[in-house]
Amino acid sequence: MGKGGSDENMAAWLLGVNTLKIQPFNLPALGPHDVRVRMKAVGICGSDVHYLKTMRCADFVVKEPMVIGHECAGIIEEVGGEVKTLVPGDRVALEPGISCWRCNLCKEGRYNLCPEMKFFATPPVHGSLANQVVHPADLCFKLPDDISLEEGAMCEPLSVGVHACRRANVGPETNILVLGAGPIGLVTLLAARAFGAPRIVIVDVDDYRLSVAKKLGADDIVKVSINIQDVATDIENIQKAMGGGIDVSFDCAGFNKTMSTALGATRPGGKVCLVGMGHHEMTVPLTPAAAREVDVIGIFRYKNTWPLCLEFLRSD
Amino acid sequence: MGKGGSDENMAAWLLGVNTLKIQPFNLPALGPHDVRVRMKAVGICGSDVHYLKTMRCADFVVKEPMVIGHECAGIIEEVGGEVKTLVPGDRVALEPGISCWRCNLCKEGRYNLCPEMKFFATPPVHGSLANQVVHPADLCFKLPDDISLEEGAMCEPLSVGVHACRRANVGPETNILVLGAGPIGLVTLLAARAFGAPRIVIVDVDDYRLSVAKKLGADDIVKVSINIQDVATDIENIQKAMGGGIDVSFDCAGFNKTMSTALGATRPGGKVCLVGMGHHEMTVPLTPAAAREVDVIGIFRYKNTWPLCLEFLRSD
Amino acid sequence: MGKGGSDENMAAWLLGVNTLKIQPFNLPALGPHDVRVRMKAVGICGSDVHYLKTMRCADFVVKEPMVIGHECAGIIEEVGGEVKTLVPGDRVALEPGISCWRCNLCKEGRYNLCPEMKFFATPPVHGSLANQVVHPADLCFKLPDDISLEEGAMCEPLSVGVHACRRANVGPETNILVLGAGPIGLVTLLAARAFGAPRIVIVDVDDYRLSVAKKLGADDIVKVSINIQDVATDIENIQKAMGGGIDVSFDCAGFNKTMSTALGATRPGGKVCLVGMGHHEMTVPLTPAAAREVDVIGIFRYKNTWPLCLEFLRSD
Amino acid sequence: MGKGGSDENMAAWLLGVNTLKIQPFNLPALGPHDVRVRMKAVGICGSDVHYLKTMRCADFVVKEPMVIGHECAGIIEEVGGEVKTLVPGDRVALEPGISCWRCNLCKEGRYNLCPEMKFFATPPVHGSLANQVVHPADLCFKLPDDISLEEGAMCEPLSVGVHACRRANVGPETNILVLGAGPIGLVTLLAARAFGAPRIVIVDVDDYRLSVAKKLGADDIVKVSINIQDVATDIENIQKAMGGGIDVSFDCAGFNKTMSTALGATRPGGKVCLVGMGHHEMTVPLTPAAAREVDVIGIFRYKNTWPLCLEFLRSD
Repeated sequence: MGKGGSDENMAAWLLGVNTLKIQPFNLPALGPHDVRVRMKAVGICGSDVHYLKTMRCADFVVKEPMVIGHECAGIIEEVGGEVKTLVPGDRVALEPGISCWRCNLCKEGRYNLCPEMKFFATPPVHGSLANQVVHPADLCFKLPDDISLEEGAMCEPLSVGVHACRRANVGPETNILVLGAGPIGLVTLLAARAFGAPRIVIVDVDDYRLSVAKKLGADDIVKVSINIQDVATDIENIQKAMGGGIDVSFDCAGFNKTMSTALGATRPGGKVCLVGMGHHEMTVPLTPAAAREVDVIGIFRYKNTWPLCLEFLRSD
Repeated sequence: MGKGGSDENMAAWLLGVNTLKIQPFNLPALGPHDVRVRMKAVGICGSDVHYLKTMRCADFVVKEPMVIGHECAGIIEEVGGEVKTLVPGDRVALEPGISCWRCNLCKEGRYNLCPEMKFFATPPVHGSLANQVVHPADLCFKLPDDISLEEGAMCEPLSVGVHACRRANVGPETNILVLGAGPIGLVTLLAARAFGAPRIVIVDVDDYRLSVAKKLGADDIVKVSINIQDVATDIENIQKAMGGGIDVSFDCAGFNKTMSTALGATRPGGKVCLVGMGHHEMTVPLTPAAAREVDVIGIFRYKNTWPLCLEFLRSD
Repeated sequence: MGKGGSDENMAAWLLGVNTLKIQPFNLPALGPHDVRVRMKAVGICGSDVHYLKTMRCADFVVKEPMVIGHECAGIIEEVGGEVKTLVPGDRVALEPGISCWRCNLCKEGRYNLCPEMKFFATPPVHGSLANQVVHPADLCFKLPDDISLEEGAMCEPLSVGVHACRRANVGPETNILVLGAGPIGLVTLLAARAFGAPRIVIVDVDDYRLSVAKKLGADDIVKVSINIQDVATDIENIQKAMGGGIDVSFDCAGFNKTMSTALGATRPGGKVCLVGMGHHEMTVPLTPAAAREVDVIGIFRYKNTWPLCLEFLRSD
Repeated sequence: MGKGGSDENMAAWLLGVNTLKIQPFNLPALGPHDVRVRMKAVGICGSDVHYLKTMRCADFVVKEPMVIGHECAGIIEEVGGEVKTLVPGDRVALEPGISCWRCNLCKEGRYNLCPEMKFFATPPVHGSLANQVVHPADLCFKLPDDISLEEGAMCEPLSVGVHACRRANVGPETNILVLGAGPIGLVTLLAARAFGAPRIVIVDVDDYRLSVAKKLGADDIVKVSINIQDVATDIENIQKAMGGGIDVSFDCAGFNKTMSTALGATRPGGKVCLVGMGHHEMTVPLTPAAAREVDVIGIFRYKNTWPLCLEFLRSD
């Protein structure tokens, strides 16, 4: 939709199960620290699909019509009176969550856990699959010339991997196991590599997914079974593929089988980071893992990841 | 057995299920960095009882006759040629584990996870329920005058609480929930208080245990049910008793019920430390806890705790 | 000035060197997240005196008339439309700095370093020595019943000590040396004790100051000389008074003599925290300290300290 | 000296100022955890040259004839009875320091600070510039096939850079300034790159050194003056070359000029790591740096660095 067209801002509204409609979307007033962005690239996340198919995702329920979309990049059209870091025409990637900055978690630097968070396309907050959105300038990150708008939109999923690697303290001494070679497993693989992980083994039940992971830089791949009885065998194969202690395992699936494998495969004193959300309740051998001081690290979204994602995208 | 008596060193040998016998126990040669200690106080740990009743504890199995006991204090009788910090007559508390100091974990300061650890009364290593033992001088900590030998022996169980508090980073800003008011729950309570925890709530199913916890300084106690269906109600009561966010929960029981309660009760960004070892495999809502970045911290024994325990015992 | 009096808000304006005048002070409009507070207790800080005597403090210069004062507590008179945590009549202590929450430092949890900080009585921002001020509700902390308004105002200087102790990671295993028994040395002493420091030695050149420090709980005091030649002797006396390794030294004076003493007295692997600001440029033996991995930790004001200060004040 | 030659072990003995002589060097008995290594590559460190020219280095004084050398690699000739990780014929790099493993610093994982450290060629301990040495097996690290013995010997100087980067917490978000492009500056540059530092600027007074640094991967170089009056200008040029905040500065020279530049150039909340040891006493603007929470991090040698150095050497 060109700049010269109608003034009316249009967006993709989720109206009901499997019902998406392009309808007008009123923009809020531009605050002094806000920018107005013309959207150019918006990814479709698994959560968008969840909402479309079921009107819910995890504990969030869509009760009113809601604009979807939150993986996005665009071009600045207008900036608020106090904005000094951006000008119209700048290409930017958008961090989707606006936190309150008044609660303890925000003040302590864990704003991703803010209970007042307003996050694109998390009900009742509208998303960014629209011609234009208004957003705080400090959540819009200027793209270097050599990063496309589509790549810019990819900062969002990559941020999940970056945040997981940061919380698990991944560096050039951290041998990594990734369980699950779906989208989240792959961004975690990419992030771990970018953090300098010397050796990354990734496992999945699917050959094609594994082949993609290999192309994206996994040092080794291991095909595992979906059967919980095979945990011990899988661990043996994984440890053989690693050829040394596994310092951090990322469970990017989140099922009893993957978590049991992660807990058993990780070396004493290592960490298991639970990224995927397959099972709500889990039946896993938590006690023997704890008795080897294998910690289980949780993650929720991300914080302060965009600049690093852009750095990673640029250097690749 | 007095110094003037027979030269023969006697010890409590575990020979089979429910079979303990006092028999001679040959001491090894005194190395240059070792001391010979006449035992004066040896506590009986739950693990000693486990071994006595079943010849096993966790993954450890008693296959040969073994001297039991590891919570101990005594008086130095002889010191090796290189020992400069202790002299005969010194009253000391003994840290029971001798690690290898050659593996990565030892060198990185996590010697409690050393795979070569030789630990009193963990098969096939003999324990300290003997008239005399030979032990490295650096694992024998001199007791101040105002600490008795019996109190010195208590450094061992207290160390579990201290190590748990250290790993969970307890301090004057950490509101604490302790689940289970048995011996380990109580030492965790004492340690958390000593680390400055401002508010500690402890829960149990048993009134008497709770009353002991109250006497030992718990700010509030909550009686909980043994029934897994009551998790939500228990959490509500616990949070009411706390009157604020729970920063760290110590599960000192280690059952599905206690761990589910801990995971649900802890604030976003908080920690659950799994200390007790009730269930091997656990069925717990791990995913929603991880999605609030509640980390699960494991612990195994302790490291570098004796000096701090003596400090805590002295200041009480 | 009573509630029933004139509507005009009055404040203490610094107009020039040694020239303070009570004049009307217009309040800004009350924002939705702000509160209006009637001031009841305002401490006079060394910086207020600096400004009064010289119109400057550190790098800050008073160029326009400015209301002074920033250690304060009062009673809520009015709350903005979105304020849910406070109501008129609440007694509160005020954290004086408003940070931007848009820069990296704010977002990473180090808001005290925010380059856009607006801080009471730091030019060109007005202070709080006024009948009333308007302030963000999240920077106003409700006083428990047993804490007076005067004590509430003391949260500000105490926060300096708390922040220093946090940055230096003080806990029940940290033996502390405090250099300088002036106001900042004393709040550091109090904070270190509250963080559980087992042994605190404080030094000064003045007997009276030392006697106050002793009354406030220092385990030992050492009178030192003002002469730089005496550093070695002073260190010897200090280490004798400590009777063990010094883990953290707080230089609350900030002169060549105190810093040289701190650097030399601290054990290998320990920390020196530079709190006082006596000399701008320092001539000190930094290299041999660095070669023992004694780190020098800087501090600037504080962050997230009011709740902990109130906890400390309550428990004393 | 070939394997088939005389049994007598020869070494380079420092006998006096500028007096080095090849003389027999008796090997100690091989302990059960030791190996005997035939030296194949021994680097000459600045400290070796210092000892040769002055019989001293820092606080260490050579009072008795001493074998020099500590940057070394060789081939295993014999292993002690308990050694399971190495066999004769293995090519290994040697970590030169043997710590006591009985003191607090060793037990806490900071063995490099051990007061009982026995370190090659640090008086009165002999070095490794010998045909053969006996050394603990856990301090001999097997070289992968694609790493030469000469490269293996380089693990020692590289370890200094690695330890500095670890203590300063360098990663893919850390913009680095290195002051001094001598050997230590260059290994710090290499280590920082290996830890993922996105942008590294290095400064020196010497064009040739800078050109070497550029070849080794510095993103930008800045020629600075030796004159203390030019600190402000140099900082301006450096910050322009960086084009963003400097998170960590490594002072690899250790003079008033370099340290003043580092303290002034580093962003609020950043770190200055003092690696070089030019001046003993320093005159530097420590206070304004501390007031921006710029911490000064000291380093001494290294710990646990050989495996990572080998990883870095392999991946280059």
